[in-house]
Amino acid sequence: MHFISEQLLDDGVLAREFTLGETPGTLWTPDSAAPVPLILMAHNGGLHRREPRLVARARYTAAQGYAVAAIDHPGHGDRPRSAADEQARADLRRAMRAGEPVDEIFESFVGPLVEKAVPEWRTSLDALLALPGIGGPVGYAGMTAIGIRLAVAEPRIAAAGFFAGGYVPRAQREEARQVTIPLLFLLQWDDEGNPRQRALDLFDAFGSKEKTLHANPGGHVGTPWFEVEDGDRFFGRHLK
Amino acid sequence: MHFISEQLLDDGVLAREFTLGETPGTLWTPDSAAPVPLILMAHNGGLHRREPRLVARARYTAAQGYAVAAIDHPGHGDRPRSAADEQARADLRRAMRAGEPVDEIFESFVGPLVEKAVPEWRTSLDALLALPGIGGPVGYAGMTAIGIRLAVAEPRIAAAGFFAGGYVPRAQREEARQVTIPLLFLLQWDDEGNPRQRALDLFDAFGSKEKTLHANPGGHVGTPWFEVEDGDRFFGRHLK
Repeated sequence: MHFISEQLLDDGVLAREFTLGETPGTLWTPDSAAPVPLILMAHNGGLHRREPRLVARARYTAAQGYAVAAIDHPGHGDRPRSAADEQARADLRRAMRAGEPVDEIFESFVGPLVEKAVPEWRTSLDALLALPGIGGPVGYAGMTAIGIRLAVAEPRIAAAGFFAGGYVPRAQREEARQVTIPLLFLLQWDDEGNPRQRALDLFDAFGSKEKTLHANPGGHVGTPWFEVEDGDRFFGRHLK
Repeated sequence: MHFISEQLLDDGVLAREFTLGETPGTLWTPDSAAPVPLILMAHNGGLHRREPRLVARARYTAAQGYAVAAIDHPGHGDRPRSAADEQARADLRRAMRAGEPVDEIFESFVGPLVEKAVPEWRTSLDALLALPGIGGPVGYAGMTAIGIRLAVAEPRIAAAGFFAGGYVPRAQREEARQVTIPLLFLLQWDDEGNPRQRALDLFDAFGSKEKTLHANPGGHVGTPWFEVEDGDRFFGRHLK
């Protein structure tokens, strides 16, 4: 893990850009003498890890006493997009506008992303936990499909917040029953890209004894800020 | 409103028993110099307002800086039960055990309860808000059916937490769209007495711009304690 820049923010949070092999990432850490728990924050939709609303959440969470790491998955942010990725995204947008079924396009696009991203998260986790000031346990927050795979494959993940689980690849829908860590499952009730009933079915399927669903009205990007605070309290119960 | 006894609890909360006409109730107030917001806490199922898990919630909430009032509705707690009430309850239990439809029994039982309880809450509200140390705004927490009616009829209710909305009388299902105050709708995912899909449909129907659904696995009495804390933070956002 090579740190390539750092910036001390006005809330006392240190933001450091890093690379790990081909993976670019950002690590936000609070001003803390004691080691802090780590939260892996994952996003989708081709978004950049420097997208302002993702950064605002990461900074706020770091200021509550967590190390927060985000990476750009293959085809996201700073990383090259393949022609196949671009085509799949264009197909997805077109099909959604036309109200056509999107499962197969989604599967062809997100299935491989999960397979590529999860090993990168595990390598990142090794490197992050070797840094001074970062202790276990580890939480995961964000994109549902990657989170399911990581929660099943990676025993160091102790609790997870999943967002927008309407479309999830078949493999992860099947793995949901194997997820047993405490979950906070966050749903936008009118999410244009995530069918509500499928998200509710996925919540039902998780094997976790402690799982909580939070749902709010509005579309994909309309999550109210208080859910960020609720998420941090959820992690506080399980990681601190 | 006549206070008939008082007890200072070890968390600094003062618990006072009162009567208002035929209505017996309890008021919990924190040790506070400034006026505190009021939360009306309503329950169902023939429970007594002194049921330990209701009292634990009321005391905890009072200690967070709220006045909390509970009353025994007609046919509940200290109040006489009519032969018709007893018969309806017995019919309901028998039908549930047999897996038979319970809508008509429920309607015959809870419909009139709502009609009788809501005026008692409004009279109680007048008396409670006239007490020193209790200011507006007012929140409501508990039984969904009474809460819907009260939220529609009573402009002093500024925010409400509803619990277990699977069976709600027809009149209140129709009124749900008229509810526009901020809501926290709490659902036990496997509530034996409250069909999940009906509760989700009711959440969908509320007219409120801010409404949040919280769901946890388990039966009717299995709500995790952290939901009490979440409820208090919800009221903190809207009443303080």
